[in-house]
Amino acid sequence: MRAFTDDDLTRDAFLGGRLELLQPRSGYRAGIDPVLLAASVALRPGLSVLELGCGAGAALFCLAIRGAGLQLSGVELQPAYADLARRNAADNGIEAEIVTADIDALPDDLRQQRFDVILANPPYFRAGAHSPASDNGRQLALGETATPLVRWIEVAARRLAPKGYLHMIQRVDRLPEMLTACEGRLGSPEILPLAARAGRAADLVILRARKGGRAALRLHAPVILHDGARHERDGDSFGAHISAVLREGVALDWPAA
Amino acid sequence: MRAFTDDDLTRDAFLGGRLELLQPRSGYRAGIDPVLLAASVALRPGLSVLELGCGAGAALFCLAIRGAGLQLSGVELQPAYADLARRNAADNGIEAEIVTADIDALPDDLRQQRFDVILANPPYFRAGAHSPASDNGRQLALGETATPLVRWIEVAARRLAPKGYLHMIQRVDRLPEMLTACEGRLGSPEILPLAARAGRAADLVILRARKGGRAALRLHAPVILHDGARHERDGDSFGAHISAVLREGVALDWPAA
Repeated sequence: MRAFTDDDLTRDAFLGGRLELLQPRSGYRAGIDPVLLAASVALRPGLSVLELGCGAGAALFCLAIRGAGLQLSGVELQPAYADLARRNAADNGIEAEIVTADIDALPDDLRQQRFDVILANPPYFRAGAHSPASDNGRQLALGETATPLVRWIEVAARRLAPKGYLHMIQRVDRLPEMLTACEGRLGSPEILPLAARAGRAADLVILRARKGGRAALRLHAPVILHDGARHERDGDSFGAHISAVLREGVALDWPAA
Repeated sequence: MRAFTDDDLTRDAFLGGRLELLQPRSGYRAGIDPVLLAASVALRPGLSVLELGCGAGAALFCLAIRGAGLQLSGVELQPAYADLARRNAADNGIEAEIVTADIDALPDDLRQQRFDVILANPPYFRAGAHSPASDNGRQLALGETATPLVRWIEVAARRLAPKGYLHMIQRVDRLPEMLTACEGRLGSPEILPLAARAGRAADLVILRARKGGRAALRLHAPVILHDGARHERDGDSFGAHISAVLREGVALDWPAA
């Protein structure tokens, strides 16, 4: 896949304009999912964070806007997206190390580090399960030739410091795959369902699991994204809390019970 | 384990008194879980239902109260509970075949049948994970020496007719085990979380999965059992819908989306 030229790119605002990201006009574009993923991380200065498959950097850089003093690293397989992530970091004055690599073959430097938090927003469709996308980058990012989820979780478990957390956002139908992959690798799994509206089935889940955790699985009350029973008015109809998460960088807290 | 004498038993009302069950004073006693499990089954005359591990018959007999013309069978390992189930059926004028057997060694007669619905409320604790109970019957029912969940699901998958449904109620922390066990055996898994109160994590789930189903996993909005943020007044504080489910035999419908 060739590098992006400026004509290929749009500049998009996240977190109410606190973050501006160059993204490919066509190809993999971040929506609200990486913003929600980043919002689910409890921050403290000095926290080291690695994102597996960081794309143009949306999740990682949302963290940088939310909290100061973080040590941010991202791994991205596709050089054009990795370059874009570096450019986005520089444009936003964010310090982050972006490594161009396959998560299956991390460079030695990364393999010698352990992280407090690992983020992952892996491709949503299984290899072969999705109709072919028209360009290669989108194809890879959407997952037609994707690394199985178990590999993402295996790599995350190896790179996590003791008591470190994996945060992964994924389609709900891949929950069995995710939970199976955690067995013997990460403990204390918690599922935060994300549902479009109250009473509706969840579309996505954020999975949090802990290196060395021993607590029983928790299935939390769903986070409801939109107000009302259906799409009724102009605009995005996000609920007040989700609006604050998406536009003001407010945390998406994990329920205590 | 010896048979129960009348002194060992209490007579308890279910479904607002429409069903009265003899249950051991000490030992495994049905709470609301089998009632909710039964309420989650969509009934039609002629439906054939097998309950694996039917105990004194709470779930199975709730079905009989809810709908006429069902063909009900139950398997129970412990002779004293199986006898109690037969007595409870007779006392309530319910026709049901109760077989004393291990689900791991079903008699030929049952092995030659296929069922539209299979119910299961397997022991909630893993073998060895629970402190020893004081009597053997309770010990077995609570699961200290329990058959692994994968075996329950394996047996259910074999006994289900094409397009038949398994309905299983279980603690939420055993979700990974249940979902793994469904792989390759049952499809279209749906999870109905049961939470004590709004905003709280789920304690139990009802899993529904279909023989030959091919739909993606669905994680439904939770069913909330109690009104209010915490236990504030006398009585059980069940919400209006759950009250109707528990006391009037109203169905616990599966959400369409």
